Amino acid sequence: MPKIDLANIPLKTGSNYPAPYAIEMAGRSSQRLGDAAGLTQFGVNITILAPGSRSSLRHWHENQDEFVIVIEGDLTLVDDTGDTPLGPGDCAAFPAGDANGHHIVNKSQSEGRFLVVGTRTETEVGHNSDIDMMVEFKDGAANFTRRDGSPLPVADQ
Amino acid sequence: MPKIDLANIPLKTGSNYPAPYAIEMAGRSSQRLGDAAGLTQFGVNITILAPGSRSSLRHWHENQDEFVIVIEGDLTLVDDTGDTPLGPGDCAAFPAGDANGHHIVNKSQSEGRFLVVGTRTETEVGHNSDIDMMVEFKDGAANFTRRDGSPLPVADQ
Repeated sequence: MPKIDLANIPLKTGSNYPAPYAIEMAGRSSQRLGDAAGLTQFGVNITILAPGSRSSLRHWHENQDEFVIVIEGDLTLVDDTGDTPLGPGDCAAFPAGDANGHHIVNKSQSEGRFLVVGTRTETEVGHNSDIDMMVEFKDGAANFTRRDGSPLPVADQ
Repeated sequence: MPKIDLANIPLKTGSNYPAPYAIEMAGRSSQRLGDAAGLTQFGVNITILAPGSRSSLRHWHENQDEFVIVIEGDLTLVDDTGDTPLGPGDCAAFPAGDANGHHIVNKSQSEGRFLVVGTRTETEVGHNSDIDMMVEFKDGAANFTRRDGSPLPVADQ
């Protein structure tokens, strides 16, 4: 049955960001629709943002196209040009290699949700815009480093 | 600006299907969001279906994943299992190589629209489910034939 049973796709919470950044993702959860439906060439997630939460640290991808459409709520796209309101039906696209770091923030008092599509590639490099961090994805693992490739400082516990 | 200015993306109408099938696509139009925004790895279109119209002939793809989310209206997914209603927010996925021919039909009295994502591949073969037709996409051209590769009959004028 091609229709996706959204009610039965588990909510994923948490973050693979290293400390102290993982905690900044509190309030974000997501459903992995594409994986559940057997898609392999691009990922399709619904991201749910509680008031005050954000989709990710501000970042851009070297190799993967990314696309979002807002389903519900009053959200804010933050990129190098500043803040752009995004409401239901609004769409945004982030071509691979465009070094315009972006994320989506819920500055409203109500929950918001958007659908995000991203190409699946064997390897990928992501760059963070507001902190000295980058990430290489390879063999299913994410390796976070400083921008010069050196290890991140150990966070206070 | 990553936000897509939907109001300024032209409406594409018509069909590249050979006669007598092209006329069956009357009432369907689409906006090519992904192309307009510079995405190259997957296509993102909004398809608008007038009452009585359909997204395509019923078909499946050998090599390309496909995903849809309904934006507006009461639409019907038709596949090998029959009819499945799809309303706003409902999603469906069609993994590459799954020989379950599908299309989306507007059996309601109001306009409907959905967003569709499909992988871009250099070549592709599509199979039609209800008629003796298939199509090979190569070098930017679509070559429609019978399932055995022989030319289609010339349609009555």
